[in-house]
Amino acid sequence: MSLDQFFAPQSIAVIGASRKPGKVGFEILAGVIKSGFPGKVYPVNPTCEEVQGLKSYPDLKSIEGPVDLAVIVVAAKQAVSAMQACADKGVKSAIVVSSGFKELGPEGAELEQSLVRTAKTAGIRFIGPNCIGILCPATPLNASFAGALPRPGTVGYFSQSGSILAAMVDMSRAADIGFSKLASIGNKADIDEMEMIRYLGDDPDTQVIAGYLETILDGDEFIRQSERISRKKPILLLKAGGTKAGAQAATSHTGRLAGTENAYECVFERAGVVRCESIKAQFDYARAFAYQPLPAGPAVGVIANAGGAGIMATDAIEREGLELAQFTPETTARISLIMENAAITHINNPLDLLGDALADRYEFAMRAVLDDPNVQSLLILLSPHAMTECLATAEAIVRVAKEMRDKPILACFLGASRIEEATGVLRTGRIPSYDSPESAVAALRTMVQYSKWRSRPKRIVRLFPVNRRKVERILERHLRTDQLELGEMDSKEILQAYGFVTPPGGLANTAEQAANIATQIGYPVVLKVWSPDIVHKSDFGGVKTGILNEQEVMDVFDLMMYRIPKKVPNVNILGITVERMYQHGREVILGMTRDPRFGPLMMFGMGGKLVEVLEDVAFYPAPLTSSEAKEMLVRTRTYDILRGVRGDEGVDIDAIAEALQRLSQLVTEFPMIKEMDINPFIVGREGMTPIAVDAMMTLEKPK
Amino acid sequence: MSLDQFFAPQSIAVIGASRKPGKVGFEILAGVIKSGFPGKVYPVNPTCEEVQGLKSYPDLKSIEGPVDLAVIVVAAKQAVSAMQACADKGVKSAIVVSSGFKELGPEGAELEQSLVRTAKTAGIRFIGPNCIGILCPATPLNASFAGALPRPGTVGYFSQSGSILAAMVDMSRAADIGFSKLASIGNKADIDEMEMIRYLGDDPDTQVIAGYLETILDGDEFIRQSERISRKKPILLLKAGGTKAGAQAATSHTGRLAGTENAYECVFERAGVVRCESIKAQFDYARAFAYQPLPAGPAVGVIANAGGAGIMATDAIEREGLELAQFTPETTARISLIMENAAITHINNPLDLLGDALADRYEFAMRAVLDDPNVQSLLILLSPHAMTECLATAEAIVRVAKEMRDKPILACFLGASRIEEATGVLRTGRIPSYDSPESAVAALRTMVQYSKWRSRPKRIVRLFPVNRRKVERILERHLRTDQLELGEMDSKEILQAYGFVTPPGGLANTAEQAANIATQIGYPVVLKVWSPDIVHKSDFGGVKTGILNEQEVMDVFDLMMYRIPKKVPNVNILGITVERMYQHGREVILGMTRDPRFGPLMMFGMGGKLVEVLEDVAFYPAPLTSSEAKEMLVRTRTYDILRGVRGDEGVDIDAIAEALQRLSQLVTEFPMIKEMDINPFIVGREGMTPIAVDAMMTLEKPK
Repeated sequence: MSLDQFFAPQSIAVIGASRKPGKVGFEILAGVIKSGFPGKVYPVNPTCEEVQGLKSYPDLKSIEGPVDLAVIVVAAKQAVSAMQACADKGVKSAIVVSSGFKELGPEGAELEQSLVRTAKTAGIRFIGPNCIGILCPATPLNASFAGALPRPGTVGYFSQSGSILAAMVDMSRAADIGFSKLASIGNKADIDEMEMIRYLGDDPDTQVIAGYLETILDGDEFIRQSERISRKKPILLLKAGGTKAGAQAATSHTGRLAGTENAYECVFERAGVVRCESIKAQFDYARAFAYQPLPAGPAVGVIANAGGAGIMATDAIEREGLELAQFTPETTARISLIMENAAITHINNPLDLLGDALADRYEFAMRAVLDDPNVQSLLILLSPHAMTECLATAEAIVRVAKEMRDKPILACFLGASRIEEATGVLRTGRIPSYDSPESAVAALRTMVQYSKWRSRPKRIVRLFPVNRRKVERILERHLRTDQLELGEMDSKEILQAYGFVTPPGGLANTAEQAANIATQIGYPVVLKVWSPDIVHKSDFGGVKTGILNEQEVMDVFDLMMYRIPKKVPNVNILGITVERMYQHGREVILGMTRDPRFGPLMMFGMGGKLVEVLEDVAFYPAPLTSSEAKEMLVRTRTYDILRGVRGDEGVDIDAIAEALQRLSQLVTEFPMIKEMDINPFIVGREGMTPIAVDAMMTLEKPK
Repeated sequence: MSLDQFFAPQSIAVIGASRKPGKVGFEILAGVIKSGFPGKVYPVNPTCEEVQGLKSYPDLKSIEGPVDLAVIVVAAKQAVSAMQACADKGVKSAIVVSSGFKELGPEGAELEQSLVRTAKTAGIRFIGPNCIGILCPATPLNASFAGALPRPGTVGYFSQSGSILAAMVDMSRAADIGFSKLASIGNKADIDEMEMIRYLGDDPDTQVIAGYLETILDGDEFIRQSERISRKKPILLLKAGGTKAGAQAATSHTGRLAGTENAYECVFERAGVVRCESIKAQFDYARAFAYQPLPAGPAVGVIANAGGAGIMATDAIEREGLELAQFTPETTARISLIMENAAITHINNPLDLLGDALADRYEFAMRAVLDDPNVQSLLILLSPHAMTECLATAEAIVRVAKEMRDKPILACFLGASRIEEATGVLRTGRIPSYDSPESAVAALRTMVQYSKWRSRPKRIVRLFPVNRRKVERILERHLRTDQLELGEMDSKEILQAYGFVTPPGGLANTAEQAANIATQIGYPVVLKVWSPDIVHKSDFGGVKTGILNEQEVMDVFDLMMYRIPKKVPNVNILGITVERMYQHGREVILGMTRDPRFGPLMMFGMGGKLVEVLEDVAFYPAPLTSSEAKEMLVRTRTYDILRGVRGDEGVDIDAIAEALQRLSQLVTEFPMIKEMDINPFIVGREGMTPIAVDAMMTLEKPK
């Protein structure tokens, strides 16, 4: 459904309109009136005949004409009957400003549910409750108490926090941001962040979607929709409320390493969503996206009139992973024409036009640098010296930018009062301007990343032929008997069904049996305890590697049988597995944890015992494409080891990527798998089959 | 020497004073006059009789009275004779604004040298050349073209870049910073950053020292002096121009991992210097240090009137390594008195006073939170709601802060126009105020870190009894014969002289010899090629571990002799060492690289082949105290492994710290050691002697 009726209605009723300044019912009505809203405005207040110069209606039904949008400002307890009145009047859109609902606890939550039921029955869509309203500068309409209407523009904004929205609106003028639509979505009882994102995604007046969120209600939907919409418009989110809690309860390495932050980070990345670290960063990025084209790549040209700012920009470019463009000889020759009197011998990037650079030198240099095919974006720095023409330089930048529209141009004029007028010119000329080289470069970096995301190839998830039935049987048996932790043996059987190779070996119940198995499969072997009570076997001396002969096998068997029950009282040991040991190759970990919001997150990293110490891991939401799987590898330091370091041979990278995709298929097809590790997963050189040496898995009952 | 004469002279001559607006000679003189400088001002210009309303002098000697400070604004080529004129007149302090010196290349550098010689001979101290002058709001004196004089305050500022200084001055009013003294130090031909830091350190009007630097001339002096001065006042530095270049040339792991950034970071840390990432950050931090006491620890109390900002502050506090203070039951009870009508059941930190909080509720809550012994600093957030008393709240904050001075109070009022007046009140009330919760928390974090640094115990470097003569002999022999790369054998001999234990073993020239040595020392053994041409032996198959018997020793010996010359043509193999192999324990790396500016930097980290891949290392300047050595360990992830993970025993941490101190003593006593690695250094459980299994060292000839 389109939410147009909220932002450009023909008529508005304010239920709970007040005559007392300071009251929300006063401020909302005053906002509507002051904003110059062109439609009809009906204050509803049974206690008086006139409110703020308008005729007051005792109730909704007394209003003669139709009402497109109702703003409900009454106390929480009367909100449900106000909603019912909307239903009776045939109102289809409402904003419930009233607070006192879910945010106050169970009683409020119940009230909120009645509100939802009443609205749903009547087919009413509503924003709130516990919100501060909506604004639309183009209509113009200010049905909020967020302060004065900001100026019109192309940024669509929604916020879960009313106070943050109010602050944003107040700061937007100085920060040079104009808006298409703004909404405070409050408790999100009906219209939530996803619906806002979808609506703004389709809204022709919105070019950049921005929002403040504390929670995301439907993670799956968030990924799917954001990914679709990010292809058209950037989505800039300020996500507050990261917390470490929750990760502690996990049994797998993967689950323990995931954490909320990792989940948001990889989900945002998958969906192309630009994450903003602060309100200021969000403004900084919004300005760049709203006013400038996307850069084709990371190569930045920098023009300055002093060394200091250029050095700071260079530092920032290096830190943010961008590049200083290499000027072509043609560009260098062209620039040398205007620099001939200056005493520099080399024309480099950053290009220092020197302290006596007037506007004409800036203009000439801008054209030369923008013409350079090696330059993909331009950053213009200006430090006000005694003779610097700040204003004329700003005008020149705007002029050139109007002619040369294919590369993004960002500016940073250092100073305050001396550059105030000039930055005003930049602002009206749609040149995003920043208070420091670092902020400008950070904005450029997000543009480069988003641009790269937009041009990624279509996602194709490969489906491998697997033995799905076998896995179904194993999992069903476990769920039926409430055995939610799968040990090594069962986990490996499942992995085999999905094309993984596990080491040859067998289960022994006596020392002699163990020795027999070892002799059959060949030395060296590994002995591992098998017990449903022990997940991380090495914590309790339950793993012994590098066993070289029969005698040693029997000694180790007996020692484990004797020692482990001392460490884990009442442990149920089902036997000891004897497996062929793989000495050549690298140990990595493949894993998955199911995030409560976003579903299965895949993990790859350096394996072995030290995985949680080194934390050299990468996460990405399943299902994985082949290039996503490879990208996960590349993200880690482990990748350098896998490619071969210091005389060591590299390993089969593609085999790991394929294994990650197979695992991704497994966890996508079986949503009851809650978390799992394959650790170590041993990979050898190209052409060698990698081996899933150990694995564990936990299940959750389908709800 | 005190630089007071620069900032509060009795008389000033401007040599090269001009009548033409826009000319530097005009702007400087205009600056002096407009600033209301109370002393005598003498324009020197032979071409006219009057400049800007003052009598002009044809030359310095025509001035009747004495001249305390000369500002030289003439062309570079005339600057030396102007300096000579200063000498003849008996001027003792000069500012050389003129550019065209070292910054332009060798010719300019020569001119700069003449300038230095002339000044030195006459006993003249000078600032510059290539600078924009100095400012002192208290005098008042503005002998610069940095713009209007900023307001007086307690921050002393120096800048290597004139344009950055000008921008800072312009931005300082809005950023709420007042200055004691400001200087543009330009090419630093005479007075450099160190002299400025020393002077501002002793200056009673300066409470906070801040500066912008691109280079540091004397690293040793920088560490020594900054450390001394940081005990009295914070030094906030914006260091631009980090670069990766240089690190590539090193042969040791330590040298390759060091890099410029690591060097600055650990040196700043040692010296207690606060590093600022941007101009904005420097202002943010300066404000906090200038106006508020230092916090006793990391526990922050947060007061807000909305959820959003509180959540953002909580995120930032977690990210920056601070803590949310736990309110005592008394505090909670006290606060519940004013919150009784509000519908919250729990009073937590961040304390949400709710949207209807007026100034009195803020004031009451502030007092309660500041009284709480668990709270070490206070962050006050305000989001302007419809009824929020922004102004009265600001006044309340200032009032409470005046009474309760022992804990730092920082504020963040979100918004722009609606909070403008209130932030003005905070400003005059010396409450540092920030534009986002993130910036406020970052400022608090730097205060907490600095406060912790200030309270660290006195540094005592332990001296171990060593065989210094032996090392002298080895090093002298190498220097004499120009063998600057020491291989494993010599390096280990040196280490033994400093109390390190190396594995038993010997050098073999035939396979049989090797087998004999192995049999004597016992299996397993390691064979390593010994060649002056090979530093990283494993890169060329020159290391074989885990050899178990005589036959294997002979095979490996012969294979190395056969294969290595194929990989390294013309290699000079002096033999193959046979050493006892240590299988139990952890491999770490100890190392040192001599930074060209800061001298020996010690390194500790995870050892073995992967050291450069994992980059899990910590740096710190030598000489190390025992607690610094331990702190280096704690900084790495390796530390968690060393303490024991997943069923593995921990190792002897103190033994590693002692080894680092011994190494620190070695490189401090022998400055010709340029870089070195001990890798691996194998450490076992407590009480076991750690072994320096392999080592390398490079020397440089004393200059």
